[in-house]
Amino acid sequence: MTAQLIDGTAIAQKVRDEVKEKVAKRLAEGKSQPGLATVLVGERIDSATYVSMKQKACADLGMTSYHHPVPADITQEDLESLIRELNADPKVHGILVQLPLPSHLDEERVLQLISIEKDVDGFSPINIGRLAQKGREPLFVPCTPYGCIYLLKEAGVQISGANAVVLGRSNIVGMPAALLLIGENATVTVCHSRTKNLPEVVRQADIIIAAIGRAEMVRGDWVKPGAAIIDVGINGIPMLNEDGSPVISQKTGKPRQKLVGDVNFEEAKEVAGFITPVPGGVGPMTIAMLMANTLRAAEIQDAK
Amino acid sequence: MTAQLIDGTAIAQKVRDEVKEKVAKRLAEGKSQPGLATVLVGERIDSATYVSMKQKACADLGMTSYHHPVPADITQEDLESLIRELNADPKVHGILVQLPLPSHLDEERVLQLISIEKDVDGFSPINIGRLAQKGREPLFVPCTPYGCIYLLKEAGVQISGANAVVLGRSNIVGMPAALLLIGENATVTVCHSRTKNLPEVVRQADIIIAAIGRAEMVRGDWVKPGAAIIDVGINGIPMLNEDGSPVISQKTGKPRQKLVGDVNFEEAKEVAGFITPVPGGVGPMTIAMLMANTLRAAEIQDAK
Repeated sequence: MTAQLIDGTAIAQKVRDEVKEKVAKRLAEGKSQPGLATVLVGERIDSATYVSMKQKACADLGMTSYHHPVPADITQEDLESLIRELNADPKVHGILVQLPLPSHLDEERVLQLISIEKDVDGFSPINIGRLAQKGREPLFVPCTPYGCIYLLKEAGVQISGANAVVLGRSNIVGMPAALLLIGENATVTVCHSRTKNLPEVVRQADIIIAAIGRAEMVRGDWVKPGAAIIDVGINGIPMLNEDGSPVISQKTGKPRQKLVGDVNFEEAKEVAGFITPVPGGVGPMTIAMLMANTLRAAEIQDAK
Repeated sequence: MTAQLIDGTAIAQKVRDEVKEKVAKRLAEGKSQPGLATVLVGERIDSATYVSMKQKACADLGMTSYHHPVPADITQEDLESLIRELNADPKVHGILVQLPLPSHLDEERVLQLISIEKDVDGFSPINIGRLAQKGREPLFVPCTPYGCIYLLKEAGVQISGANAVVLGRSNIVGMPAALLLIGENATVTVCHSRTKNLPEVVRQADIIIAAIGRAEMVRGDWVKPGAAIIDVGINGIPMLNEDGSPVISQKTGKPRQKLVGDVNFEEAKEVAGFITPVPGGVGPMTIAMLMANTLRAAEIQDAK
């Protein structure tokens, strides 16, 4: 292995420690306790797990969370009323609506209703627009791409002047990551399912951000020697025995899965200069940056 | 010359003719006459010229314009009051604040105050954010990048799957052009002053959008044979005699200038597949798209 591992778990812990310290300082100064409202529509297990991790993080760092579970068949009108109440509530500094929403709801309208000072996920078009515009700072940077850039900086990777390739152009990761890298003076290429000669394009990258959601798609020979790889993918694939048969769980009787990224780690780590593992890379950063954004939201609202 | 010339003057005229026809149809149906408010702060000659061209275009196409010249030393407060009045005025469908503003004014606050339904320049962060987000249509696409994409399509250039290089990342042209191209499924690389090996990067482009503001910077040997070139640059350079001395105007006694783009046209036209001239390429499209946006603004406001 030639690549230096970028330890997302440790770096996320550092961010969390800093947030925790600042929250304690706020409270000692008599300022308000940062509060995050979490809105969970329906009972998707993955969404419920994410929300409970976010609530736990708030508790760990001395912040409050206000949980608002609502039924899967809530009307647009009722969900909007809830958002308006949370916008008006001075105890709530940040509002997180766990995505995806059931298909009968208009996600854009819901997200756009969140007061821009409380949009700790940074998904409102205003925040994304400001991210794209020179001289216009977004109030909040979306958590996962913010985490990606943070990892690069912590690892000491030079971003300015680097060729960066972003795989994927999602609203939540790929596109805002590309905008952040352009703001940091990288030369950025955004690739996606229609890109031709993808291996060749990736091979020119000093920085690769993989957020395309396809297990181990980026192979070792796509990677320029010394490149920095941030692997945002989290894909479940079947765990295999040595003979190639699937490993069956003794407990559930079902095939066991393992989590892999969008990059073939075993191959890429022999070529890259830096690489994030999956899990333990970008994953922990998302919640850490959400906590940093929630603290920032409290600070912004203090200043008003 | 191998390249096919993309005739912006003719294509802009076609857009204008279509707008004119639709406006006439609106009026025949008893609908309101589209109205554009133009706000000109101070007396910059270039800005005044642009504004008067826009007013003339409105008149040519059967639309109304409402001109609001205000002194260069107008306060932020007074300018904001004017915008609020125009937002509230039902006769005004589009609001155009001619940029740049004098430095004592907060451009972002002014632009953000324009009602999103009247933001015919498309510069509000909400419009730009929607442009960057899948599944979220901006109400208005900024006029110059909109014109660039329109020219490519009219010329029959295949955008989906093409490698596109955008030179420049300005709020007004480069960045929104890149976002539009990503939305059209091109693989897009955004280059700027910090880009390394620029000629090599440009040489991989099937589509080049040059909006960097440096006279004739893109040389013929930077261009991949058959590439489509959209040259947004308008740069004044001294006109030279055969002996290399500057041409002096007999009328003014000053050196005469000629307009050139960001691309060395004489060299590039021998290599490219398509190329826009300067002047007569992108230039006329900007006003044509503004007219299309103003008509669209009237249609949006009808629907309310």
